[in-house]
Amino acid sequence: MDDSLSRPPTPAGLSCYLAISQLLGLTVVAMTGAWMGQYRGGIAWENLLQFNVHPLCMVIGMVFLQGDALLVYRVFRNESKRSAKILHGLLHAFALVIALVGVIAVFDYHRKQGFADMYSLHSWCGITAFSLYFLQWLLGFSFFLFPGASFSLRSKYKAQHVFFGAFLLVLSIAACLLGILELLLFSIRTTYSSFVPEGILANVLGLLLVAFGLVIGYILTREEWKRPPAAEELALSMDFKTLTNGESPSSS
Amino acid sequence: MDDSLSRPPTPAGLSCYLAISQLLGLTVVAMTGAWMGQYRGGIAWENLLQFNVHPLCMVIGMVFLQGDALLVYRVFRNESKRSAKILHGLLHAFALVIALVGVIAVFDYHRKQGFADMYSLHSWCGITAFSLYFLQWLLGFSFFLFPGASFSLRSKYKAQHVFFGAFLLVLSIAACLLGILELLLFSIRTTYSSFVPEGILANVLGLLLVAFGLVIGYILTREEWKRPPAAEELALSMDFKTLTNGESPSSS
Repeated sequence: MDDSLSRPPTPAGLSCYLAISQLLGLTVVAMTGAWMGQYRGGIAWENLLQFNVHPLCMVIGMVFLQGDALLVYRVFRNESKRSAKILHGLLHAFALVIALVGVIAVFDYHRKQGFADMYSLHSWCGITAFSLYFLQWLLGFSFFLFPGASFSLRSKYKAQHVFFGAFLLVLSIAACLLGILELLLFSIRTTYSSFVPEGILANVLGLLLVAFGLVIGYILTREEWKRPPAAEELALSMDFKTLTNGESPSSS
Repeated sequence: MDDSLSRPPTPAGLSCYLAISQLLGLTVVAMTGAWMGQYRGGIAWENLLQFNVHPLCMVIGMVFLQGDALLVYRVFRNESKRSAKILHGLLHAFALVIALVGVIAVFDYHRKQGFADMYSLHSWCGITAFSLYFLQWLLGFSFFLFPGASFSLRSKYKAQHVFFGAFLLVLSIAACLLGILELLLFSIRTTYSSFVPEGILANVLGLLLVAFGLVIGYILTREEWKRPPAAEELALSMDFKTLTNGESPSSS
């Protein structure tokens, strides 16, 4: 395989969809900030404003950064696989830390205000998404970055890792939609049905979160946009297949 | 290709996941019925009970039947492609009709009670899912069942149809989760935080809806569980590729 085949340029269609995904991602973060700033009194780590840290951190961590981490292999097509892996793991770690701040904010706010925890469907879906996301990160690190796992084990786990990664982004977005609705029904219940600006802003934010997930999902599922293996990876994979013929998961 | 290759048995793993999906699907329908029957006064086309038609019809149509329609090509692996297509289209049509009854029920209930329509995030996501589902059905019918579309056009649209089909199931489930939370916050707002049985039942229903989507998504994305093309379809496809070399969407 010559160099032009192993390092092809980013397809034009992919670049366009990547741009749309980033525009949507930045828009949902900005809109969440605007919602908290304009209608919920702003953001601080004290009093009632502490709650507002929660939506902003969850949208930045569990949606924008998690989504972008999934795109790393599509964006950095010609860098080494190890560099892409490290960036993928770091972005997810960064997302987890920001989301953890958001989780702590809401539990601390509930404790100070004397509110009950973990009774709503939003909290059940949210904590499930966050816990599984942390577990997925640990498993991903153990299998793909920790040097112990064999090539065969990595191949077997990879399809599961990719599927559950996409599932966790979807579940995170669903938890955000539930959070938006719950906050609206707690804060503007009596005026929500009159199409007040805050309700419309938050509803549009919900639809844009769905659109972000849709575009990320579309990019990830286009077979022709997958990162082409570099020449040396391909050679290694061929050698492995020759050595362990019949053992590869795709040969069943 | 001999007959044993063109008509392989259903893989054992697939049968197991299909069984789980049906168990989950029937459970969410039964739980929605139990919720409406046990805690919301039952189901009827009059007075306050008319609302209760809505959740039941949406879960049966937009989740259970829509999900099962996506599985047709995995379940009926050895029947003719045309039979599978017709069943796929019929199940979606059946799902659409039942969902339409659910949509009419809630609009009619709102009209009679003097409630505002279409202001909540649940209604925005729900009507988006329902409208796009109807559009997807019309496009699917036009491309794949109506005799006019060429093989080349069908191949190009198929990947989009499959992706948006999966997206619509996800969006429908998200709309159901929002509907569950909205109904709980309207009906048991003051007791929801005390972990009352109705709240727990509805939350568990929400998680099982997520699990149903997860299992369906897992089945659909396993490459090795895809319906193998029958010998005659493979021959036709090979002929076509030979005739239009370079024009096939997968060759770009």
